[in-house]
This record gives sequence, C-alpha cells and structure tokens, in this order.
Amino acid sequence: MKQIFIAGAGLSSASLIEYLLKQSTIYDWKVIVGDYDISLAQQRINGHQNGQAISFDVFDQEQRNDAIRQADIVISMLPASMHIILAEDCVIQAVDMVTASYVSDDIAALNERAIEKGVILLNETGLDPGIDHMSAKKVIDDIQSKGGKLNLFKSFCGGLVSKKYDTNPWNYKFTWNPRNVVLAGQQTAQFKRNGMLKYIPYNKLFSRLEDVYVDGEGHFESYANRDSLSYKYLYGLDDTPTILRGTLRRPGFCKAWDVFVQLGMTDDSFEMHNLDEMTWRDFTNSFLIYDNIKTVEEKLQTYLSLDDKILEKLVWLGIFSDDKIGLSKGSPAHILQHLLQSKWSLEKGDKDVIVMQHIFEYILDGKPYRLTSSLVVEGKDTINTAMSMTVGLPVAIATELILNKKISLKGVQIPVHSEIYTPILEKLKAYGIDFHEKIINQS
Amino acid sequence: MKQIFIAGAGLSSASLIEYLLKQSTIYDWKVIVGDYDISLAQQRINGHQNGQAISFDVFDQEQRNDAIRQADIVISMLPASMHIILAEDCVIQAVDMVTASYVSDDIAALNERAIEKGVILLNETGLDPGIDHMSAKKVIDDIQSKGGKLNLFKSFCGGLVSKKYDTNPWNYKFTWNPRNVVLAGQQTAQFKRNGMLKYIPYNKLFSRLEDVYVDGEGHFESYANRDSLSYKYLYGLDDTPTILRGTLRRPGFCKAWDVFVQLGMTDDSFEMHNLDEMTWRDFTNSFLIYDNIKTVEEKLQTYLSLDDKILEKLVWLGIFSDDKIGLSKGSPAHILQHLLQSKWSLEKGDKDVIVMQHIFEYILDGKPYRLTSSLVVEGKDTINTAMSMTVGLPVAIATELILNKKISLKGVQIPVHSEIYTPILEKLKAYGIDFHEKIINQS
Repeated sequence: MKQIFIAGAGLSSASLIEYLLKQSTIYDWKVIVGDYDISLAQQRINGHQNGQAISFDVFDQEQRNDAIRQADIVISMLPASMHIILAEDCVIQAVDMVTASYVSDDIAALNERAIEKGVILLNETGLDPGIDHMSAKKVIDDIQSKGGKLNLFKSFCGGLVSKKYDTNPWNYKFTWNPRNVVLAGQQTAQFKRNGMLKYIPYNKLFSRLEDVYVDGEGHFESYANRDSLSYKYLYGLDDTPTILRGTLRRPGFCKAWDVFVQLGMTDDSFEMHNLDEMTWRDFTNSFLIYDNIKTVEEKLQTYLSLDDKILEKLVWLGIFSDDKIGLSKGSPAHILQHLLQSKWSLEKGDKDVIVMQHIFEYILDGKPYRLTSSLVVEGKDTINTAMSMTVGLPVAIATELILNKKISLKGVQIPVHSEIYTPILEKLKAYGIDFHEKIINQS
Repeated sequence: MKQIFIAGAGLSSASLIEYLLKQSTIYDWKVIVGDYDISLAQQRINGHQNGQAISFDVFDQEQRNDAIRQADIVISMLPASMHIILAEDCVIQAVDMVTASYVSDDIAALNERAIEKGVILLNETGLDPGIDHMSAKKVIDDIQSKGGKLNLFKSFCGGLVSKKYDTNPWNYKFTWNPRNVVLAGQQTAQFKRNGMLKYIPYNKLFSRLEDVYVDGEGHFESYANRDSLSYKYLYGLDDTPTILRGTLRRPGFCKAWDVFVQLGMTDDSFEMHNLDEMTWRDFTNSFLIYDNIKTVEEKLQTYLSLDDKILEKLVWLGIFSDDKIGLSKGSPAHILQHLLQSKWSLEKGDKDVIVMQHIFEYILDGKPYRLTSSLVVEGKDTINTAMSMTVGLPVAIATELILNKKISLKGVQIPVHSEIYTPILEKLKAYGIDFHEKIINQS
C-alpha cells in the first residue's frame, strides 16, 4: 500500500485531497493529511477508509522525518517558505515531492542532490504557476515542432467572482489571499514588447492596461504581472520579441484600485498613528492635501482627477464613512485590507471563476497566425472552488503520475515537459479544466 | 596631553580636523586621525605638529581597542552603521564619543550603560541632524520659557550649489552623497497639519510642494522630509498642531525630478537587462509605452503631460541621447546616478551653499507671532565646503566642550539641551554659521 503524505489542509488542499482519496480506492493508496490544526485535516479526510488525519508541525524534526520516511511521495501545501524544510528531508530520504509554488533559490539548489538520489521535486504545478506553464508550453512545443516561429506570447490569468454572483460596483470579490491582492504589483513589472525591454513601476502599473477578450466571459483589463522576462528562459522563447504576462480584472477595476496606490493606502512599510480614534473618513483624509474649504470627497476628486464612476466605487466601499476603523494598529495596507474584507468577501453560495488566456502570434510556412488558448473554470461549491480545483487537481494528478511511474524526470522540475503536461492536461478535462483554442490566419 | 581619536577622514571630516588641530595648540591636545586609507588621514593632518595619521580598520578589534584606550574622546565620521562598533567599546572603556549621525536603535540601547560609566555618547551633532536641532530648540525653549504656545513648526534645509556657480537648467549640483539624492524620499513622508496626521507616498512627494522664501536667496520649493512626527517628541511639541520638515530645492527642480520617479528610474530594487548595448535613449524608452509613430521625446511628453521647461531640463541631461550608457550592470537608480554625476558634479572652483529655515507660529500674551530663523552658509573652498563646515564644525566644537568639561550630560544624547546648543551656536557664529531671526506680529 503506497503512502501519500500531504502537509497542509488549507483551502487549496480540498480538491486535491478529494481527488487522491477517490483514486486511492483504485490504486490501494493510503492518504495521510497533516496539519497543525488536526480538525482541518480530519475535515478533508471526512472519514474516508484510506485516509488518515494527523496533527503535524513541520518544525518538529522527528515528526517530519517519520512522516517522510513512511511516505512514497510528499505534497507540500504549506506556505511557500516552508517547502524547503520538507524538501531537504525528502532528498535525504529519497522521497519524491510535489508543490504548487514557485521554485525558490533554496529548492533550486537541491537539484543535483535530488538527481543523485533519483528523486523528483516537482514545483509550480498548481494554477499559476502550473496550468499556465502546461497549457502555454503545449502550444509553444506544438508550434515549434512544426517549424513555426513565435513573434508574440502573452498570457493572462485572473481569479474573480463568477458573473452571476458579481454584485458590487468593483466587479471583484476576494477568492484567494486578500493580503496578496492588496500588495500585488509592488515590484516593478518587466516585459518585452517588439524586442524592447519595458519596465512599469508600481505607480503606473494600474493605469497601463491592456484589453483582453475571452469568449463567453467578455472583456477584461489586465495589468502587467511581475517579471515576464523569466518566461523567455522557461519556455525557450529567446527570439520572441513580445513576451508579456498579466493579471485580469473586470473593466474599470484597475483605475479605481490605482486610487489606493496613488494615495499610499497600499503601503505596508510603516504603522499608522492614532488609529484608535480614527474613522474611515480620517484615514482617507490623511492622504490628502490640506484644504479648509473642500470636503474630503472634493479633495480626493481634485487631487487625482477622478471621474464619477470611480468615486462611486470608493463611496460604496465606505472610505468616506464616519465609522471607526476599529483597529488599534496597522500599516495603511493592513487597514485597507480590513475594509476590503468587510466588503469584498464571498457570500454564502457565491462561486468564483478562473479565467486564463494565452495569445500566440507566429509565422508558419510563411503565413502569420494568431492562436488564443482560453480557459474558464467556475467553482462547483464553497469547498470545490475554481481556485481550489485549479490549484489542487494538477498537483493531485502529478502525484498520481509519479506514483504510477509515468514521469521519468528527476531533480528540481516544473511542468514544462510534455511527459508531465500532456497527461495532466488530458486528465484535467474531465473536471472541466479544458482549454479552448482558436486559430486565426492573419494574412 | 589629551588625545582625540577621529575615525574616518572623508570629505565631511576636513573642517572638523582643521578646527581641532587649531585648538590643539591652545589646549595642548593630540589629534589622531584614523582612516582605512592612511594617505587621506595624512592629507587632513597636513604635517601639523599635534596631529598623527594612522591606518585604521574599525573591524580590527585589537587596533580599535588600542585607539579608544589611548583616547580621551572619540569622534566617528565613519558610515553611520559602523558607529555602534566604536560606541560599544567606548562605553566599555568609559570614553566619550561624538557623531553627526542619527541615533540608531543600537546606539539608543547603550544609554543606561553609558550613564553608569559616566560617559556621553553625543549624536546628531552635524548639520541635519545637528545644527537644525540646536537652532530650532533654542527658539522653542525661548518661546516656551516666556509662556508662548507654539501652533506651527516647520523646518527646511537644503544643500545646493551657490547661486554664482549655479549654471545648469536644474539649478542643482551634487554637493553631497549622490546616491542619497537619487534614493531620497522612497519612504512615505509623515507630518502633522492643523492637528491632522498627513502621509505622502513617494509617487506624490515631488508634486506636493511648499514655497519657502529666504532673504537674500529668494524662493525655494520644498518636499516633505521623511518622518516629521518624531520631532514632536524630540522637541517637546506635543500640542503643536502643525509640524513639518522639508528639503529645499530651487524652483522647478522637483517637478522635473518627479519625471524620474514616475518613470521608475529611481528604482533600486532590480538589475536591468542588456545594458551593454543600451543607449540613454533606449534606457528612457524602456520606461515608456510602446508606440510605433511617436518619438521617445513625444512619448514621454504625452505619458507624463510635461511642459517644455521640464523637457528642456531632461534634454540637457542627455536622457534622449544616442550615446551608450557605458555600464554593464546596475539598477535603474544606479544608471540614473551615473548620468547625473556626469552632469551635476561641482566643477573646479564651484562653491556650495547650505540653506536652512525654521518657521514658528506662536501665541504670546494673546498675540500671534511668526518667527523665521534662517541660515545661509557658502563654502569657502573645495575642502572647506559649506557642507563640510556645517557638518564638521559643530562636532568639533562639541568635542572641545566635552574635553573642557563644559557639558555635564551623560548617556546617549542629541543637542537639544541648552547646555549643548548655546555654546555651540555661539562659537559657530565666528565661522559665518549664524542664524538670522525675524519676528512678525501677525495681529
């Protein structure tokens, strides 16, 4: 009986564990779920005969080594910074490991030792990073194998509230870690446009937008996402003059979000003073220019030349309200998150949606083509959200493939190889995670 | 024969060492100057009979302890982060110490031990921090001792090129550490305005300006300088509704500088790619929106709505030139600094100027007053620059006072006490460092 050890039973582990428990009856696996909070692990196992919940502290060396020793494969769904603790021991004990997180420098450094031990440390196998790699690399490999020459690669992804439940003027609700949303983009975005490197600093990020159209979902706007240049190496796009990755939002979101950026409300670098007595109106006013005649609304509108649509979004959020903030300490970003969570949380019954689109432009046999590969996944329920499914299922399928010896690669890997992405993308289709491709001959 | 040990013989030590050598013949002192580069120390001593130059490495524990043991007082003009290394040993060996830098948390933590040993660690005794504390606190103490109530305290300081040598369209040349100028303001500015806390993020810092007028020097513009709120505690201004500190530039500078901020050219957080082949025009273009019709100049002008005056400044700097950058690696901030240093360096014979102004508004005997206290110091020559004199002389005078037992305070101190600031301000007058006060009855 092969054993799978899953560290971390948070939201993103739900679909993953459900999948592996289902397969466990076919392949005769034992699925052990460890979490600091054992009740969370128990909830995920839900009494399944092949499942076992344990209380797990990754910093407990003895417990960690025991768990790894008994396992044939380890899945880490812990916070990304903790993967290395498990990965080191997995290499020592020659146990394969899968994560949904970016390869950190620490993990990358284990490559040679992992190869020596005949172990795979498979990372970036969730949604983004994960499904994005697989679906993009599949098309790129296909175009390149036919002798096509890629001139443009753009890739967009967004986690949003599904249209039917999209009930606020921002057309946005938190479907994932709110803190990451508040702090998103505080690193200069880098990409390539017609052969020229381009850099967008934070203060311009949410005003330099690109329109993205997805069949059935309509128009989105996107802002550039961190360092797109790294994909040049990952996907073998050395000679591709345009490479851009972006994050999707419904139209109108970014210009309104930019108000917070311009004001300084997303700043996480210092603690604000005198919060105890502060109202939301005071909070907003503290970022505005003193004026003894204008109202706070008027000051803000003048300061950032806002149109009524944006002002309406801000009013709806309550940034001008006379209610107390209700926090005794925090950075501006922390305070803003507190407000947003009270307004942008999913309500009972709300469903989320994942939207992804890759755009490729290439020359094949002397003719120019444009290929779009699009994915829309709606959540099934509160547990099997689109985010949980798209993050967890590829991890689960990769685990299944490794256990069943369908993947021969060793060392530190990401799913940009056909051996990995082809079977995963194929199996994901049964769960509605299915890319729609469209090719236009542009000549 | 009392011994003074000065660690660090850089630019800012010149006037300081000159002063102490002069006084050494009166008081029979020995002045030992230690620098990693002994030739620099020798240059400062310049063969003076009471001086001695040594090669000094602050990280050499034995040498450090020897130097401190033989000294009656230590002056650290090393980079601020190194003061603590000397300060720890000064406390252990019960030797007084003076610096021109902000009190770090490390230094602050030595307070009790310093008091026990009967030692003073006097910090912030240069220009800013230093002369600003002394001159402002003198007026504040004077107003408060008469029963006046302060409603407003603003304090401005700038290191600039003297008018006569002010020959470029930016009206600015580097008179101090260029890197600090390029990175200035990347921390949210905090101040108090009519009782309301105000925060200005980096992206708005150089457009929210205040006009400052100094007799004889004319108009300046100022941008808010870091955390003004800390002065509430330092100067005992708990009930003062307006507290602001700012940095002075000649009119027109800040709006043009803001172009670099908005573009992302002052970003020091990542290394740019492909610098080898890059021209200044490419560098500028990499921060602009792709457009296949407009020139780089047109793109920039449209992107940031620039007027011709600003564009003229940018053209003069060469940011549109087809010359190679000439660096193989660097962050945007590093590359920008490289350009600025080629254009903004003082030329032979150029003199610098220090301009400082405090503004106080207060009620005394029921009447409202406005008091301005202004300082203008021009450099004497290339060695005795205004910056070197205003940083070094107060340190030197404080050292003289401590050696001559005129200061009784112990522990970690800054010069906000009359015992310290009164004699220093008095002695500075002989060097042309003399505040001009003007009181207007506003009723």
